[in-house]
Amino acid sequence: MQVTGHNFPAMRRKSIEKASCPIARSLERVGDWWTMLILRDALHGFARFEEFRDSLSVAPNILAARLTRLVEDGFLDKRQYSAHPPRYEYVPTQRGRDFRPVLLSLMAFGNKHFAPEGAMVEVINTKTGKPADIGVFDRATGLPIAAPDYRMVPGPAANARVKKRYAARKVEAGAA
Amino acid sequence: MQVTGHNFPAMRRKSIEKASCPIARSLERVGDWWTMLILRDALHGFARFEEFRDSLSVAPNILAARLTRLVEDGFLDKRQYSAHPPRYEYVPTQRGRDFRPVLLSLMAFGNKHFAPEGAMVEVINTKTGKPADIGVFDRATGLPIAAPDYRMVPGPAANARVKKRYAARKVEAGAA
Repeated sequence: MQVTGHNFPAMRRKSIEKASCPIARSLERVGDWWTMLILRDALHGFARFEEFRDSLSVAPNILAARLTRLVEDGFLDKRQYSAHPPRYEYVPTQRGRDFRPVLLSLMAFGNKHFAPEGAMVEVINTKTGKPADIGVFDRATGLPIAAPDYRMVPGPAANARVKKRYAARKVEAGAA
Repeated sequence: MQVTGHNFPAMRRKSIEKASCPIARSLERVGDWWTMLILRDALHGFARFEEFRDSLSVAPNILAARLTRLVEDGFLDKRQYSAHPPRYEYVPTQRGRDFRPVLLSLMAFGNKHFAPEGAMVEVINTKTGKPADIGVFDRATGLPIAAPDYRMVPGPAANARVKKRYAARKVEAGAA
């Protein structure tokens, strides 16, 4: 939610030292309003600086900083599309495309909770035309991620802190 | 990614006037590193100020501001659990619980892309013990949200800007 870019580097340094949680590690790279919206637009097919700028009404210096960061962090690939004058476009990498489920989940959440007038955008089944009722599931079993079939546990690389956290509570993977 | 709280109100006002996208509207409420991590912890079962503070190593004034905001925005319910002295806990509402799929998608993404040493936390199937391969799907059909079965379209409440955006490009709902 940072607007000026001023606090970002310090925040990032501190958090990278500490974060063991995969959510926190992802947010280190994308936990910023503009960054997620740039990814949204890049996955929509926008690629040029002007396209992002016009879509987001974001200040050019902020946009340039966020695009550079997304390239550094491996979400976007920077490609030259014109030599004279030199011009670049930004195209999602596999990592960038892998972020789509996060945005789809955010979209479904926003449509449910913050669209009193109805959905502004939605995902439809192309055969039936019906809006999708988006949830998270396990590709291996086809089951929704929900209690009691699923729960969160410390992973193979869990440190003492994470183990302690989960030892104190049995954590459901959620009924949503 | 804002740390001080200084830029947040201005950003919010500007964005609320403009945002039609459900992703943007959701990020207005939670598009902040700390806010998402507080929700993560609340869904983990943490409820008291001290629990969030110790888990996140966040400054008390920032934590207090974010908790207040999450209560105002309907993600957490503030309940008094002690009268002398007065003490409160913060419990996820239905809206807060509905945010879980976003965090699960972020967790899956983080484990895939930012956990070179292996998963620190993961979701397992409680019967087989196997880690879930988390994706997004349509509860109505059981199908993964992926091209060519699904695509994004302007919804019933789409304005001219959104319609124009989608008219220019056929947008896949993603193969991820």
